[in-house]
Amino acid sequence: MNVTINGERLLQRLDELAEIGAIVGPAGDRGSARLALTAEDGLGRDLVVKWMHDLGLEVSIDGVGNVIAAMPHASGLPPVMTGSHIDTVATGGRFDGNLGVLAGLEVIESVMSAGLDLPRPLAVGFFTDEEGARFAPDMLGSLVYVGGMTVEEALDIRAVDGARFGDELEAIGYAGGAPCPGPAPHAFIELHIEQGPVLEAEDIQIGAVTGVQGISWTKVTLRGQSNHAGTTPMSMRKDPAAALFEIGAELHRIVDRVGAPQVGTIGRVELIPNLVNVVPASATFTVDVRNTNDETLVSVEREVDELIHQVADHHGLSVETETLARFAPVLFDDRVVEIVERSATVRGRSVRRMPSGAGHDAQMMARVCPSAMVFTPSVRGVSHNPAELTDEDDLVAGCQVLCDVMLELSATTFEGAK
Amino acid sequence: MNVTINGERLLQRLDELAEIGAIVGPAGDRGSARLALTAEDGLGRDLVVKWMHDLGLEVSIDGVGNVIAAMPHASGLPPVMTGSHIDTVATGGRFDGNLGVLAGLEVIESVMSAGLDLPRPLAVGFFTDEEGARFAPDMLGSLVYVGGMTVEEALDIRAVDGARFGDELEAIGYAGGAPCPGPAPHAFIELHIEQGPVLEAEDIQIGAVTGVQGISWTKVTLRGQSNHAGTTPMSMRKDPAAALFEIGAELHRIVDRVGAPQVGTIGRVELIPNLVNVVPASATFTVDVRNTNDETLVSVEREVDELIHQVADHHGLSVETETLARFAPVLFDDRVVEIVERSATVRGRSVRRMPSGAGHDAQMMARVCPSAMVFTPSVRGVSHNPAELTDEDDLVAGCQVLCDVMLELSATTFEGAK
Repeated sequence: MNVTINGERLLQRLDELAEIGAIVGPAGDRGSARLALTAEDGLGRDLVVKWMHDLGLEVSIDGVGNVIAAMPHASGLPPVMTGSHIDTVATGGRFDGNLGVLAGLEVIESVMSAGLDLPRPLAVGFFTDEEGARFAPDMLGSLVYVGGMTVEEALDIRAVDGARFGDELEAIGYAGGAPCPGPAPHAFIELHIEQGPVLEAEDIQIGAVTGVQGISWTKVTLRGQSNHAGTTPMSMRKDPAAALFEIGAELHRIVDRVGAPQVGTIGRVELIPNLVNVVPASATFTVDVRNTNDETLVSVEREVDELIHQVADHHGLSVETETLARFAPVLFDDRVVEIVERSATVRGRSVRRMPSGAGHDAQMMARVCPSAMVFTPSVRGVSHNPAELTDEDDLVAGCQVLCDVMLELSATTFEGAK
Repeated sequence: MNVTINGERLLQRLDELAEIGAIVGPAGDRGSARLALTAEDGLGRDLVVKWMHDLGLEVSIDGVGNVIAAMPHASGLPPVMTGSHIDTVATGGRFDGNLGVLAGLEVIESVMSAGLDLPRPLAVGFFTDEEGARFAPDMLGSLVYVGGMTVEEALDIRAVDGARFGDELEAIGYAGGAPCPGPAPHAFIELHIEQGPVLEAEDIQIGAVTGVQGISWTKVTLRGQSNHAGTTPMSMRKDPAAALFEIGAELHRIVDRVGAPQVGTIGRVELIPNLVNVVPASATFTVDVRNTNDETLVSVEREVDELIHQVADHHGLSVETETLARFAPVLFDDRVVEIVERSATVRGRSVRRMPSGAGHDAQMMARVCPSAMVFTPSVRGVSHNPAELTDEDDLVAGCQVLCDVMLELSATTFEGAK
């Protein structure tokens, strides 16, 4: 079985989807802003669903808005599934998520056009709120799909802007009736841009992703005493911003001491009232720490938590912490990873095994079926940014490898557990 | 000359003005939010101007919205002027500024009711945008009044919310025609709450303010590279938030090393895009440093500037700094300070000389006439907060001392420069 995908068609669909919620970065780069369940997300969904219907696929929408489109197939067997997400961060690029969904669509169209008789059907889907930029936790749709959270719990989640998940889902018309948790596919394979600098730095075209690092997100609120910035002696202050600065500086020392692949980020900060001449009443911020080794990650989490309480005590502040997301590191199915490696090599593409630094829907699907991922290079490792870029040749090569892997998975019978 | 002010009337006017833009703090305290040139500020102005007209005062409004109301007086001599401001920070209290304006009104009403024939008239005013919470610099109205900035420059200033000063002034109907710079009064005396903890801690009822500490406000923007928080190794980041944390922590070490009365505050922070899983592209923050000694203040400013550039360089960031406000320490006229001390003592009130930790309109007026201030205690030193509180007895005592000082100033001829 040999199918050549249509690269032009893939690139054109990527362009067309990127125009919905289009934004322009400082350097003139064109990105997209389609935060989960906003009107822009709704319009993006409508376009992709239209393409699914145009191909004659069987489209199902579940209770949290996950959309799965499967080839009609007489066998009734579980499909080989691919997919990703089409929601973005507020300053999103054109490829993050979108590539995996539109490449899946391209694979299915090419396979259907070729008139192949596959042992198992193929399916492509997009999961709701993978980014978590509007509703925590991230990978919410795929988490619910595999039964890691109930639909009811998900519907009651509040956005950072205060909106309720269920209300926003209704508003864009994607509260569907398909069962959730959803049926386990035969296997799951996701194509995604690396979003990191490794493949480009090593001049390698395809990443065969072996797993995903563990992710821990905590929201911290420190409360002190708002006061006049001129008249309050330093010794009499309860300044939550001063504590935040100490915590932030020390967090980076901890992460540096632990060393790669440990990363740590404070990406969100809100001071109240946030005025030049007022000692803040409160400082709210998020801590994002990740590692491929869960034991190390747990120890970093504990150290950061102790740090926060110690600094807050020293400043006379109250502390409130909330876990926004916590995912243990995930190992993909080695048999699927091997198929990715082999498929890339057969197509004459350089390939390396690597873990993923970011969370992806495939790590959820790995709970219910043999799963892995294919990475394509990200220029300068830039992502979550309108300057996000993958060379066209790499996009097309990634889609071709995805096609080859899906065809092989369709004919593969997995013995035993993953 | 002996006039007893009407404390009830003062307290009632304070209550009435506080209802405009009323807010409720977390502990149920009632404060006010009347940011400069907002609709609420306009309504507050309308009420005070109505009171001025009710007393038959001659009301003038200048090109930046400063409002001065003078007793009609046959002499044509420059008045003894008092006043303050009625704009507030976003989380303002009921007394900051308002006390000085309404106590001035009360003094004038009491003096007029007593039918005294004063050597010089009295006047009370309120200056636009003293807080600087919406338009930088703070004390903008009084700065323009004394010729430290032109009306045209002021009108073109942009608010933190993007609005233009001149447009907002027009919108509330306070772009007046009185000349600016305004005429120099005979003397200026401002009653204000301390906004700090010193008087209460020492159980003293009146502060005779000898001067104002120097104030330096800088807005800093650090720009790096926005990127994915999971896939970007620490060594390849250009993270402006990480730099901010180092700068903030080190700023507090510098301030602690210099020691009191040095203070330093980072009260405003904005990260872009401000998302949990994105290394920020930029961090904008303000640095507020103050000292009564200008030499020390200059040296702290230099040290902080070097710190910012050094940390930014280390992180590979670009730096942009903008001076939002810079006022050298101010010394008040010792002859006026002495009258304050004596007036308090005659009324049986305990009094101490002290510098002001906050900036006030009186420091601008000190450029053009003999000036000083009267402080009343702030409970727990809390200000810029709905919990701001001064005991009623202290409010009334402060107003009475203000009255006595104004009457004495009216009969005082100053020889030579201040």
